[in-house]
Parts: sequence; structure tokens; C-alpha cells
Amino acid sequence: MSSTAFWHQVVDKSRELTLSRGFQNGILILICISAAIPGIETSKTAVEAFGPWLHIVDRIILVIFVFELVIRITAIGKIFFRQPGADSWLMFDLSIVVIALIANELLMLRALRVLQALRIASRITPLRNVVSALLSSIPGFSSVLVILLLVFYVSGVMTTHLFGPTFPDLFGDLGKSLISLFQVIIFDGWSAEVVRPVMHAHPWAWAFFLPFTLITAFTLLNFFVAIVVNAMQHNYFEADAQQEAREFKAARDERAALMREIRTLRSDMNALTERAREQERREQDRDKGSG
Amino acid sequence: MSSTAFWHQVVDKSRELTLSRGFQNGILILICISAAIPGIETSKTAVEAFGPWLHIVDRIILVIFVFELVIRITAIGKIFFRQPGADSWLMFDLSIVVIALIANELLMLRALRVLQALRIASRITPLRNVVSALLSSIPGFSSVLVILLLVFYVSGVMTTHLFGPTFPDLFGDLGKSLISLFQVIIFDGWSAEVVRPVMHAHPWAWAFFLPFTLITAFTLLNFFVAIVVNAMQHNYFEADAQQEAREFKAARDERAALMREIRTLRSDMNALTERAREQERREQDRDKGSG
Amino acid sequence: MSSTAFWHQVVDKSRELTLSRGFQNGILILICISAAIPGIETSKTAVEAFGPWLHIVDRIILVIFVFELVIRITAIGKIFFRQPGADSWLMFDLSIVVIALIANELLMLRALRVLQALRIASRITPLRNVVSALLSSIPGFSSVLVILLLVFYVSGVMTTHLFGPTFPDLFGDLGKSLISLFQVIIFDGWSAEVVRPVMHAHPWAWAFFLPFTLITAFTLLNFFVAIVVNAMQHNYFEADAQQEAREFKAARDERAALMREIRTLRSDMNALTERAREQERREQDRDKGSG
Amino acid sequence: MSSTAFWHQVVDKSRELTLSRGFQNGILILICISAAIPGIETSKTAVEAFGPWLHIVDRIILVIFVFELVIRITAIGKIFFRQPGADSWLMFDLSIVVIALIANELLMLRALRVLQALRIASRITPLRNVVSALLSSIPGFSSVLVILLLVFYVSGVMTTHLFGPTFPDLFGDLGKSLISLFQVIIFDGWSAEVVRPVMHAHPWAWAFFLPFTLITAFTLLNFFVAIVVNAMQHNYFEADAQQEAREFKAARDERAALMREIRTLRSDMNALTERAREQERREQDRDKGSG
Repeated sequence: MSSTAFWHQVVDKSRELTLSRGFQNGILILICISAAIPGIETSKTAVEAFGPWLHIVDRIILVIFVFELVIRITAIGKIFFRQPGADSWLMFDLSIVVIALIANELLMLRALRVLQALRIASRITPLRNVVSALLSSIPGFSSVLVILLLVFYVSGVMTTHLFGPTFPDLFGDLGKSLISLFQVIIFDGWSAEVVRPVMHAHPWAWAFFLPFTLITAFTLLNFFVAIVVNAMQHNYFEADAQQEAREFKAARDERAALMREIRTLRSDMNALTERAREQERREQDRDKGSG
Repeated sequence: MSSTAFWHQVVDKSRELTLSRGFQNGILILICISAAIPGIETSKTAVEAFGPWLHIVDRIILVIFVFELVIRITAIGKIFFRQPGADSWLMFDLSIVVIALIANELLMLRALRVLQALRIASRITPLRNVVSALLSSIPGFSSVLVILLLVFYVSGVMTTHLFGPTFPDLFGDLGKSLISLFQVIIFDGWSAEVVRPVMHAHPWAWAFFLPFTLITAFTLLNFFVAIVVNAMQHNYFEADAQQEAREFKAARDERAALMREIRTLRSDMNALTERAREQERREQDRDKGSG
Repeated sequence: MSSTAFWHQVVDKSRELTLSRGFQNGILILICISAAIPGIETSKTAVEAFGPWLHIVDRIILVIFVFELVIRITAIGKIFFRQPGADSWLMFDLSIVVIALIANELLMLRALRVLQALRIASRITPLRNVVSALLSSIPGFSSVLVILLLVFYVSGVMTTHLFGPTFPDLFGDLGKSLISLFQVIIFDGWSAEVVRPVMHAHPWAWAFFLPFTLITAFTLLNFFVAIVVNAMQHNYFEADAQQEAREFKAARDERAALMREIRTLRSDMNALTERAREQERREQDRDKGSG
Repeated sequence: MSSTAFWHQVVDKSRELTLSRGFQNGILILICISAAIPGIETSKTAVEAFGPWLHIVDRIILVIFVFELVIRITAIGKIFFRQPGADSWLMFDLSIVVIALIANELLMLRALRVLQALRIASRITPLRNVVSALLSSIPGFSSVLVILLLVFYVSGVMTTHLFGPTFPDLFGDLGKSLISLFQVIIFDGWSAEVVRPVMHAHPWAWAFFLPFTLITAFTLLNFFVAIVVNAMQHNYFEADAQQEAREFKAARDERAALMREIRTLRSDMNALTERAREQERREQDRDKGSG
């Protein structure tokens, strides 16, 4: 057996394996265990009791995950190396496992291992669909987002210049201002923490905060409405419009067939009339002849 | 009269009784009284004045409820014991009454007797419909809920590991972290209680809290939109689509009838033309014969 | 001129007067002035400067309002006394003016005179329509409201019994409990003021507050959705469905006319065929006769 | 070359220039730089390092903006001076540049130079469309807004009179009352800052705050619903209704054509029948003649 043939066989077998229901479910269970371990480790008593065991299980599962990803990448083959973004869920799984590998070695980042839990969403089809739907709805609203960011930037710079010197904690630099403005937008501590203290020092400050609150709220509202309308469009209006268009098309075709039928009938009728006229002429000829 | 015949008669009579309007209204009034008593007992002066009387009335009503439930279960008969979940509203009433019976004996749980008030919803048809509609809309959103729970779990474990040591009150264990994150999601004390204190100790904390807030808010928004779209579908789009489909079907049938009629007409026409041609031939024969 | 004839003339004239554009606008301006006066009186310097003048103007306008209402009631006539609720906007105006009359005499209630401003909404047609639309949409949601009230009552009694002894300020009696629960529902001080303090004393309290928050939020969400769907129904679906029904009806009628026309054609055709057959028979008779 | 011809040539060239893609992109980049400078100036270290340079760049860009606006106004020509509001985006750009010119000279207003960032929205077509859509949706909701303002004014005056004397900070004058009521509406510090303190002094205050909160929330909800419904109307219902109307119109026309065709057929048929009857009559005449 040649080396390429052997390679093809390995690829085929591994593709079969990764597609088998048992393999899929086994990996899903391992993901759940792997996601549960950092959760268990939040409890000190659990760490003291099973700490080393958890660590060993974690490492074994991670090795299985690396093995599984190698199989999946082999199954896809050269496409993976040419277009790394072709299978974005595979890329997602790969990134999470790489993060877990790094996180496992660095004590500081160990908490990141819990990101494994997000791989559950990449394994169950309805969850994948929800995530895809959420992500695919983003580009439609990019314009509204850019406008919100512009309003935010303008307001951030203005408040830093205007209120920064008097309120260094709230508006000391651009970052602090943006957080305070986000706080204003989500109506959290709107009056007690931001508007009333600022108005104490700058009595005209309401002339900035009221329009800012109302404009951003109104823009967010329209952002929200765009999502509702967009969802409706994808779910109903388009399907409904297509169904209607099909029905109207069928009706048009049937009416055209009726029209053709009637026109044929009319030409038959004309032929008959012509024949009747012919006959009359012949009769008149005969009458003349016999006359 | 045999024992089974007598039993059947009891079942029939009790079914009649439970379906009678007077009985239904009487039980509804008793439920209202039974629900009002724990409310009255929140006032100390009322308890001092009528405490023992309230207790006696409460016990009498509870005995009537037990009696009523026995009648209803008898009326349904064996189905109840074979499929206990068949009549879920009956199961609901039964659970509430059992809770009330237990609560009556244990001082600690006496507050639970007020759950009787929820039985009002099981007695009035429009309220039952609203509750059924609310419950039936849940399965459609289970995917979004699972994703939210995953995001919550991942964020809870991460914040417990990252911020737990410095903020034991907010992120000391997984439970505390989940409550703090819920607080972040509902924008309650977002900055003053959570984000600003944490950012004081970990200046990069905004890089966790901002994406977490935006992602959960966006997912909740889509959850909400799913409910709107779902409600529209059940109320209008489906009914409208069915109505349209019926109309289009009727139009198709009528056009088909028109087509059949025209085709019959055309075959009649062809028969007539054939007849005319026959006649012509006969005439030509006659002409030849006479020629 | 008889007394009744004179009375009729007065009624007609007053109806004309109340319907005249000038009268309507004059009253609208007086309402605005009357609504502005309590606003001006919130400023102490203004009261010191023009206090007595404002009072005189206020009284004069009130006299005009009483006069105007008498005219309007006269214009409507006996209907007003038989069905006092027939013209609900008139009843609204009447109540506000009566409140203003009483409020004018009692120093304690003088603030209520500003309710006059609400009469502006009863005078301008688009505003009246908005208010009518808001009010008319309420009955459709009464079931959801009753369920919310039941959940509120049950939760209020339970929290009073459970948390009342340890938190008399928050849950001391039923009224205080309901206000604290409203606070929980609107997410105001959810953690800092209610959930965290209560959980400190009763660690299992999250098992009450989390379900309560989620259930009421979900029910409110559905309440909201019901309003959206209802508004759509009134604005578009119904009009659209009626328009479609009209179009489908017209199409059906036209197809029926086509069918009638074709059937007439077919009976004409049959008559012609019958005639042709007759002729053939005659010819055959003739042939036989001449044969 | 005459002076007018020269002028026309200048106008044409400048119109070409302002419409050229390179010019548009150059100005867009300058706007971004001009908007970034006030942002950079929020950092003290940056100001110390490049302060004078930033100032020079800012001034040069401002000169270019003034030059560009002169070209654009020239390109539009006399229309600008006759109907200054004709091109509202040009007016917007002009106002921002004028504000920047003034702001550059007055230290107090220097923060206003960041408004230049908003001109990005006036340069990119999708952003312009979003802003236009937001602005164009406002008039439809003016009635709801007026009612909200009336409710706000009435509540503001009443709370100033009722709670002003006891709570000068919250309800001391009409302005303070309106800010406190806005705080109540956005559920910020609803209980801790407003309702509970006021209820401590005036135990019946819930009878004002609960209805006020619920009424304004319900009205805002309907305002929101109006926006959703309005957006749907503009995006789908109208287009759908027009499409349907076109289809129904086409179907009507086709059915009318079918009807005309059938009527012609029937008149042909009648002519044929008439001809057959004529022939019969002739035959009968002949029979009589030969009889």
C-alpha cells in the first residue's frame, strides 16, 4: 500500500470517527467535565480535598481535546491550512483549546480554562444556530452603532474638558468620562452619582445631560426597533412575500392559459363562421345556378 | 342496586356538582377568603382582635377544599391515578392545598398559605389562558436561555477566580459572583457597587465588564425580540397565511372550473364544426349526385 | 314667544357659540393661562411681586370656566342629566373645574389647580385621540394585570411574614412589602437595598427573590408584547386583512361573472348545435322526401 | 472672456472639485484629524509634548474647512442665499465650522471643537440615512410627547407645592422637581432617594408616586410601540401593500381582458346564430317556393 493511499484511508477513517454519534457525545461529556472543574475549584474545601485529582483529570481531558482537534483538522485536510477561517466553529474550538493549554501553565490565567464551557454552544446545533443568528444580525446595525460611538466620543471629550478639572474621579480622563457616560445611559446612579453632583458645581449641566440622555436613549430605541424589524423580515415578511409572489405568478399563468384557450375558441369560432359564410355563398351560387 | 352501579351514580352526581356554576362560584369565594386571611394576619391589631376566629375559618375552608378536591378527583376517576399529570390545573390545585395543609401545622411555613391566592388564576378562564400562553412560550426560547446560562457560568467562574481574593463580598464564591453579575445585567449599582470598586483594584476590569454587559444585553434583547416575533406569528401571521392560502386555493379551484367550462365549450364547438363539415360533405355529395 | 321656544333658542345659540372656532381658541388660551399660574407661583419672587394679581386673574378665569361649562351642559341638554357619562370629556372638564373650585378655597389643596393643564389634552383633537387610544388599550391587558396583582399580593404577604420581623423598614407591613417588591421589579436598589441585606440575615432569600424577579419580568415582558401586537392589529393587520378580503371578494365576483358569461355562451352554443341538428334532420327528411 | 463667463467657469470647476471622490475623502480624513485633536488634548502629557503643534494643525485644518465650505456654497450658488435651509447637511457643516471658529478663540468653549466629529455622520451616506430616519420619525410622536410634557408639568408644579417646603433639595423649585421626577421615571434611586424619604414625611405620598410612575411608564411604552409600528409601516407594510395592490390591479386587468374576449366571442356566436337563422328562413322560403 502506497503512502498516499494510507494517508487517504486515515483521513477517511478519521472523518467517519468525528462524524460518529458516540464520538460526538463523548467529547460533549468531556467538555462539560472540563468546564465544571474550574467551577468546582472556586470552592476551597473541594480544592483541598480533590485538588491534585482535578488537575490530573483536567490535563488528561486537554490531551484528548488536542488529539480530537488534530483528527478534525486532518479530516478537513488541506482546506484548513489554505483557508483557516473556512470552518469558523473549528477555529473557535481551536482557539479555546489553545487558550486552555496556555492557561493551564500560567497560574494567573487559570480562570480562562472555564471558557471550555462555551464550546458546548459549538457542539449543539440549536445553540450554534442561535449564536450564528446573533452574529449575523450585527452588520445590519453597524450604522447606528457608529453614530452612537460618535456621540459617545464627542460627549466624552466635551465632559473631560468641561467637568474633568472639578470632577477628576468621574471625568478625569477620556476613559473615565466614557465609563461615567455609559453609567448615565444605563440610568445607573444617574442623579445621585453624576447629574446632581455635577449640577452642584455647574448649574447649567442639565443642558448637557438631559439632551445627551434623551438622544442616546432615542437612538438605542431605534437600534432596538431595527433588530425587531430585521427579525420579522427574516422570519415572516420575506417568506410571506415569496409565497405571495409564487401564488400571484401561478394565478397569472393560469389566467394566461385561460386567455389562450378562449383565443383558440375564438379562432375556431371564426373558422366556423367562415365556413358558414362559404356555405351561404355556395347556396347563393346554387340558387343562382338553379334560378 | 349493585355496588358498581352505586359508584357510577356517585361519580356522575359529583361530576355534575363540580360543573355546576353555583359550586364553582362558591369555591372561588372561599379561595378569596382563604387568600385574604394571611393578608389580614400581617396586621398585628387584626391578629389580636380576631386571631382565633381567622384560624377557625381558615381550617373550615381547608376542610372544604380537601372535600372539593376529593370530589373532583373522583369525577375524573381512574385517569387521575394512571396519568397524574393529565389535568395539570387539578395537580396545581392539589399541590397548593397540600402545601396549605402542611403550612397550617408548621408555624415556620404559615406564610405559604397565601399561595391559595394563585388558585384564583386556575379558576377564571381568561387568567388560565394567560398563564398557559406564558408557559407555552417558554420552550421556544430554551436555546437562548441555555446560551445565557453558559455565559453566566463562564463569567461567574472567571470573576470568582479573578476578583474573589480582592472582593470576597462581591465575588467570594460562585453564588456571590452570580448574584453580582445579575446585578451588573440589571444595571443596578453597575458603577458604584461593582465596576468602579473593582476597577480601583484591577484597572483593566472594564475589559471584562463592558463586553459582558453588552453581550448579555444584546442576547437578552434578542430573547425579547424572539418573544415579540413568536407572539405575532401565533396571533396574526399564521392565521393570515392560512386565510390567504384558503383564498388562493378557492381562486385556483374557480379558475380550474372556468378552464373546464371553456374546454367543454371548445369540444362543443369542435363537434359543431365537425357537423358543419359533415353537412358540407353531404352537400358536395348531393351536388355531385345531382351534378 | 313662549317660554319653551325661548329656551330652545337659547340652547341653539349656546350650541353655536360653543362650536365656534373663536370661542374654542379663547377657552384654550384661558386654560393655558390658568395652568401657568400655579407654575409661576412656585417662584417666591413672582408671588411677592404679582401674588394678588395672579389670584384675581385665576378667579376671573375660573368664573369664565364655570360659565362655559354651564353653556356646554345646556347645549347638550337633558342627555347630560340622564346619562352623565355620555360625553366623558365633558365630565373630565367638569371634574377638573370642580377640583379647581374646591382647591381655590382650601390652601392645602391649592396645588391641585395645576390639573387645569390636563384640560389642554381634552381640547386638542390629536391629543384626545392619543389619550383615548391609551385608555382603550387597557381592557385587553386586564388578565395580565390581574395575574401580576395576584403574584404581587402573594409575594407581599409572604415577605411580610418571612422578612417582616427582621426588616421592619422594608417588610414591616403589607404596604411596605409591596413598595419593596415594586422596587425589586424596577431593579432600583435591587441588591444594595433589598436582596443583599435580606440575604445576610436569610441566606436562602435568593430562592425567593430570583424567581420573583424573573417571573414578574417575564410577565411584564409579555404584557408589553401584548401591547405591541395589539397596536399592530389595530393599525395594520385588520386594515390589511379587510383590504385583502375586499380584493378577494371582487376577484371572486369577477370570476363568477366570467363563469356566467361562459355558461351563457355554452347555452347559446348548444342552441346553435340544436339548430344545426334540426336542419340536418330537415335535410334528411327532404332527402328522403326527394329520394 | 467676460466676467460672468469666468464666474460660471469657476462655479462649474468648483462643483466638479467638490463632487470628486479624492476631495471628499481628503476632507473626511481632515475631519477625523480635527475630531481627534480635542481627544488627544484630554491627555496632559500629550498637551505638554505636542500642544503647540496640535494647535497649529488644528488652525490649518480649520482654514481648509472654511475654504471648502466657501467652494460648496459657491457651487450651490444663489439658492444658498435665497433658501438657506435647502441643503440642511450643508447648514449643519457650516454651523459646526462656525462653532469651531468661535470655540478656537475662546478658551472656555474649546471643548466644543470636538463637535467636528459629528460631521463624519454628514459625510458617509449610510450614517446620513440613519440620522435622517431618526429625525423624520419624530413628528409622528409629537402628540405623545406633548401629553408626557403636560403630565410632567402638572406633576412638577404639584410636587413643588406639596413636597417643596419639606424637601428643598429635591422639590425646591420647578426645575429641581422636574429633575427629581425624571429620576423617578428612569427608576434611578426611585425608592432610596425619592419615594422613601418623601413617604417618611408624607405617608400618603405613594398615592402620588405610584400612579405617576405607572402612567408615565405606560405612556412611554406606547410611545415606544408607536416607533416600532411606524418603522414596520415604512419598511414593510407599505411596500407590501403597494406590491399587493399592483398584483391585484394586474389580476383585475387580466380578468377584464378575459371578459372582453368572452364577450367578443359571444357576439361572434350571436352573429353565427343569426346567420344560421337567416339560412333556415331562406331554406323555408325555398321549401315554400319549391313546395
